[in-house]
Formats: sequence, C-alpha cells, structure tokens
Amino acid sequence: MGVQGQNPSFVLQKQDEFKFEDRPVPTLDDDPHDVLIEVKYTGICGSDVHYWTHGRIGSYVVEGPMTLGHESAGIVHSVGSHVKTLKPGDHVAMEPGVPCRRCVRCKSGFYNLCPDMRFAATPPIDGTLTRYYKLPEDFCYKLPHGMTLQEGALMEPTAVAVHVCKQAEVKLKDTLVVFGAGPVGLLSCAVGKAFGASKVICVDINEERLKFAKEYAATGVYQSQRIPAEENARNIIDQFGLGEGADCVIDATGAEPCIQTCVHVLRKGGTYCQAGMGPSDITFPIGALCGKELTVRGSFRYKSGDYAVALDLVSSGKLNVKPLISKTVAFEEAEQAFHDVKAARGIKILIEGPVVP
Amino acid sequence: MGVQGQNPSFVLQKQDEFKFEDRPVPTLDDDPHDVLIEVKYTGICGSDVHYWTHGRIGSYVVEGPMTLGHESAGIVHSVGSHVKTLKPGDHVAMEPGVPCRRCVRCKSGFYNLCPDMRFAATPPIDGTLTRYYKLPEDFCYKLPHGMTLQEGALMEPTAVAVHVCKQAEVKLKDTLVVFGAGPVGLLSCAVGKAFGASKVICVDINEERLKFAKEYAATGVYQSQRIPAEENARNIIDQFGLGEGADCVIDATGAEPCIQTCVHVLRKGGTYCQAGMGPSDITFPIGALCGKELTVRGSFRYKSGDYAVALDLVSSGKLNVKPLISKTVAFEEAEQAFHDVKAARGIKILIEGPVVP
Amino acid sequence: MGVQGQNPSFVLQKQDEFKFEDRPVPTLDDDPHDVLIEVKYTGICGSDVHYWTHGRIGSYVVEGPMTLGHESAGIVHSVGSHVKTLKPGDHVAMEPGVPCRRCVRCKSGFYNLCPDMRFAATPPIDGTLTRYYKLPEDFCYKLPHGMTLQEGALMEPTAVAVHVCKQAEVKLKDTLVVFGAGPVGLLSCAVGKAFGASKVICVDINEERLKFAKEYAATGVYQSQRIPAEENARNIIDQFGLGEGADCVIDATGAEPCIQTCVHVLRKGGTYCQAGMGPSDITFPIGALCGKELTVRGSFRYKSGDYAVALDLVSSGKLNVKPLISKTVAFEEAEQAFHDVKAARGIKILIEGPVVP
Amino acid sequence: MGVQGQNPSFVLQKQDEFKFEDRPVPTLDDDPHDVLIEVKYTGICGSDVHYWTHGRIGSYVVEGPMTLGHESAGIVHSVGSHVKTLKPGDHVAMEPGVPCRRCVRCKSGFYNLCPDMRFAATPPIDGTLTRYYKLPEDFCYKLPHGMTLQEGALMEPTAVAVHVCKQAEVKLKDTLVVFGAGPVGLLSCAVGKAFGASKVICVDINEERLKFAKEYAATGVYQSQRIPAEENARNIIDQFGLGEGADCVIDATGAEPCIQTCVHVLRKGGTYCQAGMGPSDITFPIGALCGKELTVRGSFRYKSGDYAVALDLVSSGKLNVKPLISKTVAFEEAEQAFHDVKAARGIKILIEGPVVP
Repeated sequence: MGVQGQNPSFVLQKQDEFKFEDRPVPTLDDDPHDVLIEVKYTGICGSDVHYWTHGRIGSYVVEGPMTLGHESAGIVHSVGSHVKTLKPGDHVAMEPGVPCRRCVRCKSGFYNLCPDMRFAATPPIDGTLTRYYKLPEDFCYKLPHGMTLQEGALMEPTAVAVHVCKQAEVKLKDTLVVFGAGPVGLLSCAVGKAFGASKVICVDINEERLKFAKEYAATGVYQSQRIPAEENARNIIDQFGLGEGADCVIDATGAEPCIQTCVHVLRKGGTYCQAGMGPSDITFPIGALCGKELTVRGSFRYKSGDYAVALDLVSSGKLNVKPLISKTVAFEEAEQAFHDVKAARGIKILIEGPVVP
Repeated sequence: MGVQGQNPSFVLQKQDEFKFEDRPVPTLDDDPHDVLIEVKYTGICGSDVHYWTHGRIGSYVVEGPMTLGHESAGIVHSVGSHVKTLKPGDHVAMEPGVPCRRCVRCKSGFYNLCPDMRFAATPPIDGTLTRYYKLPEDFCYKLPHGMTLQEGALMEPTAVAVHVCKQAEVKLKDTLVVFGAGPVGLLSCAVGKAFGASKVICVDINEERLKFAKEYAATGVYQSQRIPAEENARNIIDQFGLGEGADCVIDATGAEPCIQTCVHVLRKGGTYCQAGMGPSDITFPIGALCGKELTVRGSFRYKSGDYAVALDLVSSGKLNVKPLISKTVAFEEAEQAFHDVKAARGIKILIEGPVVP
Repeated sequence: MGVQGQNPSFVLQKQDEFKFEDRPVPTLDDDPHDVLIEVKYTGICGSDVHYWTHGRIGSYVVEGPMTLGHESAGIVHSVGSHVKTLKPGDHVAMEPGVPCRRCVRCKSGFYNLCPDMRFAATPPIDGTLTRYYKLPEDFCYKLPHGMTLQEGALMEPTAVAVHVCKQAEVKLKDTLVVFGAGPVGLLSCAVGKAFGASKVICVDINEERLKFAKEYAATGVYQSQRIPAEENARNIIDQFGLGEGADCVIDATGAEPCIQTCVHVLRKGGTYCQAGMGPSDITFPIGALCGKELTVRGSFRYKSGDYAVALDLVSSGKLNVKPLISKTVAFEEAEQAFHDVKAARGIKILIEGPVVP
Repeated sequence: MGVQGQNPSFVLQKQDEFKFEDRPVPTLDDDPHDVLIEVKYTGICGSDVHYWTHGRIGSYVVEGPMTLGHESAGIVHSVGSHVKTLKPGDHVAMEPGVPCRRCVRCKSGFYNLCPDMRFAATPPIDGTLTRYYKLPEDFCYKLPHGMTLQEGALMEPTAVAVHVCKQAEVKLKDTLVVFGAGPVGLLSCAVGKAFGASKVICVDINEERLKFAKEYAATGVYQSQRIPAEENARNIIDQFGLGEGADCVIDATGAEPCIQTCVHVLRKGGTYCQAGMGPSDITFPIGALCGKELTVRGSFRYKSGDYAVALDLVSSGKLNVKPLISKTVAFEEAEQAFHDVKAARGIKILIEGPVVP
C-alpha cells in the first residue's frame, strides 16, 4: 500500500481496517470564505484510535470509509474571494470543527454544542490526515512568529485543555488536582498553571508518566493506589497541604476510581471538570456532591476564544508544548503510528502530511 | 409525658426515642446582637425524621439528646443592647443556621459552606421545637404586613427552594423539570415559576402527589415509569415539547432512577441541581454529562439573600405557601406528627410552640 | 405622492425628505436559508425619526436614500430551500439586524457587537417600511398562538428592554428605578417586573406619561424636579423606601440630569444600565461610581435569546404590549405618523404594510 | 518633637498638622479573636497625604486627631484566647479594614461595601503608624517563608491592584491599558500580567515614570499628549496593535483626560475599571459607553480573597514588589516622608515602626 495521487488520505475503512486512498481535492467554489490548506502535521488523538479499534464512540458510528485525524497545522494553499486575513503560504493551526452558525447554541457563544457541528474525523465527516483540507477562514489561526507547524498541530489538544480549565474555573492561587497524565491531563496541568493555579497535583497509576508530569508542569504528583477513593483523596490532601480540599479538579481519565476521588478531594464549593469520556455509567458519590455543594461540569471540545488562548499561551512562552511530541513520522507510517498510540508508546505522535512528488 | 417548665422542648434522646424536657431559657448575655424568640410554629423536615429513625445523616451523628426542629417562626420576646431593627412583639421568620462569619467561605458569600456552622437540629446543636430560641438579629426576618406566623415557618423550606433554583440557574423562559413532589420539589416548582420558567414539569411516582403538584404550581406532570431512564426522559421531552431537552432540572428525591433521568432529560449545556440527599453513591451517566457539557450542582441549605427572596415571593403574591400546610398540631402532639410525616401523611405539618400556663 | 408598484417602500431621501418608492422585490437566490416576508406592521422608533430630522446618529450617516423602519412583523411569503421551521403563511416577528456570524463577537455570543452587522434602517442598510423584506430563517420568530401581528411588531422594542434588564442585572426582589417613560422606559418597567423586581419606580418630567407608567407597570412614579441630582435621588430613595439605594437603575433618556440621578440613587454595589443614547458627552459623577463600586453598562440592541424571551413574556401573559400601541395608520400616512412621533403624540405608532391592489 | 511612650503614634491633628503622641496600648479584652501586632513597616498612601493636605476625602472628614497609615506589616505580639492560626512572633501582613460581618454586603461576599466598615486611617478610625495595632485573626496574613516584612507592607496596595484587575475582568490573552504609573497603576500593570494579559500598556504624562513602568511590568508605554482623548486612544491602539481596541482598561489617575481616553481605547464590549478617585464630577463620553456596550466598574479597596491572592503572587514569584520600595525611613522621619510623597519623590516610601528603648 503506497501514498499517491492528488489528495492522498489515510482512511478508516471500517473497524480495524485502514487504507491509503486518493480523495478528490476540495474546491473553494461553495463558499468564498473558505481556505484550502496543505496539511503538514497531524497529531493522533485517542478518539482516532478508538474509532479504529471500536468503530464507534457513543452514538457516533463509523458507517462508511472516513479519513482520520483532526489535530493539524498546515500551509495555506489558496483562498476564497472573501478571505481577508490569510494568503497562500501562511502557516496556520486548524480548528477542525465547523458549526452551523445559525442555531441557538452557536449564536449564544457555545458553538461546541451545535447539533449540526461538522467535526473532522467524527463520522461521517472526513478528517485531516490528507494532503488538502478545506476550512473557513475564521477556523484557521495564523501561527505567530516563531511558532513551528509541529507546535501548531498541538494547538488542538491545547485548546481542549484551555476549555477544560475554563470549565473547571481555575483561577489565580487555586489549588488544582488533575487525574491522568496523558496528553490532555498533562496539558491541563500546564494550562492550569498558566491560569494561575498555585499548586497543580497530577495523579496517575503510571510512575513513568508521573515522572514526566513532574518535570513538565505538575508541582506535585501522586500515584493512585488500590484503596478506597476517600483514602486516595485524603492522602492527596494531606501530602500536598490542600487544607479543606482542592479548589478545582480535572478528570482526564474517565476511570471510575479517579472520578470518585475527584469528588472526595474537592473542598466545599469546589469545581470539578470531567474531561475524559470513559464509560457511559459509573458509581458516583452523589451525596458528597450535594453535601459539599460542588459544581461538576462536562467539557466538550472547545468554543470561541479557546484556540486563541492556546496560541497566546505558546507564543508568550507560558506553555511549552514541544516536550509532548514524542516523535514525528512520515505519512506512509501512519498505520504504525496508530499502533504505537494504541500501545501507549510516547505521549503525542505527529504524522507528517503526504509528500507528493 | 407532658409539657411543662420554663422552656419545654421536644428532644430526640437517641435513635427512635423522643422526650419532652424542660431546658434552660437562653440568655442574651453572650452577644448584644442576639434576640430571644418565642417560637410559635415549626414545620417538620425530612431530616428531623431521619435523625429520629436513623440516628444520623451522613457524618452527622446524634450522640446525645438534641432538641429537634429548624423550620420556625415566632415572636420576639426580648432583644440585646445592639439590636436595632427588632423589638419585642415583632413576628419573625427564623433562619436556623448561624455561621462563624470569619472563615473564607463566610466572607466570600457562601456562609452555607462554613465548616463551623451552628445549625438548629444538626448534631450537636439544639433545634427550635422549644419555647424560647436565641438567634442573632440578622438571622431573624420581620414578617411583612399580612404574612402569618404559619407562613413564616414555611420560609425555611422556601429558602431551600430559592437556593435550589439559583443553583439550577433557572431564568426567564427556561424549561424546568423537577423530580419529586414532596415539600422541596413542590416549592421548587413554584419558585422556579416565579424565577420565570415557562414550563415546569413535575415528576413523581405518586399519582396523588402529582395531582397536587399540577394544581399547585406545575404546568405539567409526569408519572415515572419502571423503564430505563433514557425512556422516561424521552417521554418527558416528547410529551411536553421540550425540544432538545430541558434547560434546567432539579432532583428533590435523591433516588437513583430520577437522577439518571435528570441527566438524560437535559439539553446540551443544561444545568441540573441536586437538592435531595439520598444515598451516598449511585450509578451515574457520566458519559452524557461530558458529551452534553452539562453543569451539575449540589445545593446545600441557603446563603445570603435566599431568605429575603423567599419572603418577597410570598409577600408579593408570587408564591402561596398556604396550600402546603396539611395541618397544624399542638406541641404536645409532636411525636404523633413525626409519625405522620414518616408515613408521608400530608405535605407539611406544623407544630405549635408550647403553651405554658 | 402615492403608494404603488411591486415593492412600495417609505424611503428617507436625505435629511428632512421622505419619498414613497417602488423598490425591487428581494429574491431568495443568494442564500437558501432566507425567508421573504410580507411586512404587515412596523413601529416607528426614535432612531427612525432622528435619521429624518438629523440625517445621522453618531457615526452612522445617511448618505443615500434609505428605506426606514425596523420594528416589524409580517407574514411569510416564501422560503428558501434550506428553511425548515417556517412556511408561507406563518406569522413572524422580525429581528432586523443580521450579523456576520464569523467574527469573534458573533461566535462569543455577542452578535449585537458585530462590526459587520447589517441592521435595518441603519445606514446604508434599507429598513422594513416596505412590502417585502428578506431575513434569514433564524431571525424570524413564529408568533405563538394568540399573538397578533401588531404585538409582533412590538417585539423589537420589547427585545431592547429585555436586553436592557439583563444588562442591569435585574433579579428577583431587586428594586429598580427607570428613568424615562417613553416606549423603552415603559417596556423596561414592565420587563423589569417580569424579571422579578419588587419595586419599579418610573421617573420622568412629564406628568401624563408618569400617569400612564403607573397604570401600565410602575409600582411608583416620581416627577423629576429642577433640583440637584443628589436631591432628586434622595427624594426617590426616601419616598419609596429604597433603604441604602436602588439595586438597579436604567436610564432610557440620555439626559444628563437623569444620568447623574441614576448614579446617586444606586446603593453601593448597584448596577446601572444606560439604554438611551442622548448626547455624546455629559458631566458624570465618577467619584460616586468609584466610592460605591458601581457597575455601569451600556446596552446596545439585543443579542441571542432576547427576542425569544420577549415573545415568551407576551405569550405567557407576563407582559402586555397592547396598551403601548397608540394608533395604527395606513402605509400612505407614514409621513404624518413620523410627524406625530416627532411631536411626541402617543407612545407607539404602528404603520401598516402597503396594500397593493 | 520626639517618639516616646508605650505606644508612640503618628497622628494627624487636623489639616496640615502632624504630632507624635503616645496612645494607649490596645488590649485583647474585647474579643478573643483579636491579635495584637507590633507594626514594623507602613507604606504611605495617597489617601494619607490627602487627609493631611485637605482634611477630607469626599464625605470622610477629619474631625479630630487620627493616627495615619494603613499599609502595614508587623510581628504578632500576643493573641486572644480563640486565636488558632497565629502565635507571638509570627510575621503578618495586616488587612486594615474590619467590616461588621453582619450586614447584607458582608454576608454576600462584599465586605468592602459594608456601611459600618472600620478602616484604618479613615476618619474617625485610627491607623497603623503606631507601635501596637489590634486586628482580628482573620485579617492578619502570615507571611510565607521568604517574604520580608517590607514586602508584607506592600500587600495592601497589591490587594488593591488585585481587586482592580478582578473588577476589570482581566483574563488570559486580554490586552490591558493602565492609566497612571503611580503605585496602584504600576501594581495593576504587574498584577494584570499575572492575570494573563498578553499586552499591558502603561500610560502617563511623566516620562521617567513610564521608563520605570516599562522596566517593571508594562509591555509597552505611551506618553499622553495634549490632544483630544479620541486621538490619544487612536495612537495607543495603532502603536501597540490593539486591533478593535483594548479588552480591558484601568484608570489609576482619576484625571478627566485619562478617563475619556479609557472609554475611547476600549473595544466593543470591553471593560473599564475606575481605580483612582480624583474629582467628583468629570465630562464623560456616555455615548461611546452605550454604543460600544461597555462595562464600567468602580473599584473600592478589596474584598475576601484579594489579600490571599496578593500574597500568592509574591510568594510564587509572579510579582516582585521590591522595586517599588523607593526608600525606608525611621518612624521619627515620618513627617519628612509625607513631604516626599506629596512632592512625588519616589514610588513607595516605607516608614519603620517606632523603636522603643
């Protein structure tokens, strides 16, 4: 299987089966606000892997071939007639979900909740592991001077973490506990610090990941033990001097024991943001939610402003995403890269855009 | 067993055992801001009954005799030297929890979360089923012209419902689903309407209670069925035309099937407030919380402003609490009244203050 | 001058000069989400009159002929191919400003601040005093059962008042003082009451208007006197028992003495919303703003949700806009109607859509 | 005149006249929550100077001798019986205003608006330029390891700046313009940066102060010119690439031309915080407030949480207050120090606590 054609694409055929295909090059005829981008780097997300291994995520089901990938940056190839702020050659981070712009959610500032969202690599919309990808001008973010395209590809998970930290209401001086030392958890630690958290405790079961977390962004790390959630929570509070409990917690695991610990580690009136999908149902300490008057929020993708904050964090030097890039592979090696991510080898693997002779 | 002495009180001795006792009359010596009130009516709350039947609620354990009752109104008997706004003879609703005023929660506007809160009939603090009760001036609310002392006693559960509706973020035009047609559920329906909800759907399993709810405040009622939570949710949405789902939901039951239905009946971005304590752990649809980016909030008692809103609702005619008073019994009949509440006879039973010859 | 042609329109030629013209009928070719509406009633707004008498409002200058009118309701004539919720014959209230949907303001929930807003009868965009007017589906609001088209035309100033009350943060039990008993002031009184204000004091210099305000929605009225602003403020506070001052104030006059009184009548921490445009510069008591830590907000048109709340207020019976309609005149009498509004005869005058033989 | 006695104090006798006096040492008898502090450093605030030179600030009038000073840190001398978190010898920053804890403002989280606030060196309450000063435990903030008492004395103006930045709603990536390069302006620049502002432009007329501002915290500085406010605003926007205008502005001058420029330099929907008192009335561009739908907020002192954030900013290294300390003088030189501040010599001058043989 090779990579060739005008618009080579890495396509999930159905559960467990990839294929390189040549797809039609998108045109700019439909909407003069559109921009055609030559994709240069794409990070692999857990959701890409999940569609491959399970054929679905919740109610989103892969029912036909679908190009994967949605964490991308690239170079502007051509622009529609109404495009004002971009020109061919510009380097851009690509926000991969385009909402309807017309529904109540869109007009109220919550386009991430648009029921007609068209999101890359969410069935049936094709993703960005392709040569050319089309986006409206306002979903392309010109990279600031000095930011590389590899960093640009990391803006997607960074925007996820920005949204998570907003949902968790992280403020100056707050103490923050983050469950999970994968890409979203690590970025949530670093973004939480940029939001002003005075302590950022990262919790995981994997010692090596915790070591990375400590070097990367966490002010403290805790290795979860096979003990009741209340006990893990008590340990975290005591070990890191969190007083009556943490102000904010973020779960980036979706794992039941972590979620339970989230609730118990919070102080009265604290805020917990659920960032990881995980199983649909878990055993949840609802009594503590009520008795401590907690606020619990889901976090779903990102909304207006999140990408812009993500870019600012990197360009201002408040956030360094480079250490998260474990390796960069050629487009032809995409399938192997998916196997690596599935096996949890490395933190973030980037796939180069196809090179066409 | 009779009622006698200077300060007759209805005291829970230990689990399952009541006794009438003569307790010392409180003095105003400690704090010149205090007011001594002759209690005239006290409503029985589910928590009072729960302490009687279980000897504890969560971590609050009855370890010695404790006067019960905290939903009260009375007449000012005497006032301390610094009291400016009240005088003997004034009729007041009594806010039964006095916080420390010094901790971070108190000073930030969340005195309901004060760790040193002294709350009537929460162990080990004595309650208001007594002749004389002492409160600081600022926790006594002078009844507006025309409001009766019986209505005044209802201000406590009304303040609970006000706080619940704030936590649920009920706004003009919102659709609201309330689970539970007990006192808090019914008041949440009525208060939610006063907050501007355009539809208020009350859900319960008891047909008779639903009939009352419909007459009292709900714009629609739904009898929960023994079907999966998603199906009950779908039924509610379809039957009452809630479109993409309800804007706000309130659970005043603490029951697992209700809480699950809460999550499924909400629209994307909706808000759910947990008002009823119930079991400490339940099976919870965390996936939907995340995918719909919901906000879930506990509600614990009430904070600054809630009592004042409660009084305004009644005095302005926006809320009528009288239909909730099923009957009023003499102080001597307190024990029978507890049996009635335990057996779910009536909605709110008031106990008169002791009459001393 | 008569009314004739396919699309008769009432056009401001330049300052001080109107003309009836036949304008081209808009087509639905450009955007399949568009709806063509036959306009049935249009209210005259102060801004329409101001363009006529001054040729400009601030930086908006009438530089060529422009159809006036933007407070309209009508009947759907035809719909584009993507329109799902409307069909010919539907009665709709028309939201007259269509934003770009792509800028940061639009995507953040503040489309009223869109720099590329196309707003009816704001130069150079034509208004709704015409036979056929085109709007995107999502800016047409189907009138609820029982709401008349005349009421529908009042939804525009009602949405203005809804936005004003949101900016003023009017909440349950708040005391509210509204300056100005013109259409926006009167609607702000009524909407403020629906938002839960316990007292609504209307202030004006015109006794007759105050009489109307009192009958219509205000709980109290105050006739402004030619005395220092602090004294008028003191009188209002004393006369209506506002304690430390009002929680919220709204200025719907733009007049300097009113704005000054606004600041002085507020309690510490209160909120004041400036709703009326008035002169560009005034003498303002900035010291009181700081010392009382006030919040002052401008209010500019309306944003997502405001129209929907306006419709709900009327359909739920919380707001009655009918008393505000002073008279309804035929399209041919549009010019006389403008003279009447300029002379402050009546509150709201509606102009019927053109009747074409 | 020398310094002697048990409790030497620097007392404003009346306008224009200071005297060193021996005042009684406060006792801890009244309230067991109180702490007696030996004051070590006190910064001079503009308000101290203003009481000296004018005898009043607004409605606060010096009607009898009053000890000056309210920006202090010291060492705990003794503690009341209920004090739990402090002991003799502890170094503390002193929050100088003690509210009533009982009014609606206090209980709602706005104790800075308490009408019964007792604030050091606000008539008739004595200030901290004295040997011993008494405060409740919860208004003393133990200095973190490594923070000096001199830095501790700077926590008061830092808390002012924290409150100002909260009122201005400074968030990550926001652009911020600060008018005034005095202590509050400079601290607002630095705190605004810690709140995440991507650009912080400081505006003043004094070139030397601007030079300091640029070295200290501002990312850019602008020297105000004697041109219309709109032109200064346009220059600032153009020179620093603020696009449609700044997201947030802070005025720390109270000067009319600055306040006018504030309004014009803001983008639509931006937020402006008035931090400097200045004259009671100014000419204000109210039209722009309305047309741009701005939010304007006063900022008055600080409320719960502000001091804690101030300490965290310094202890975390996000804020360095040391460069602001121009010099430290002995208690005996207090009067000369006041003359220096009046003459705008230096930024912040500290006065040592009295040394008693």
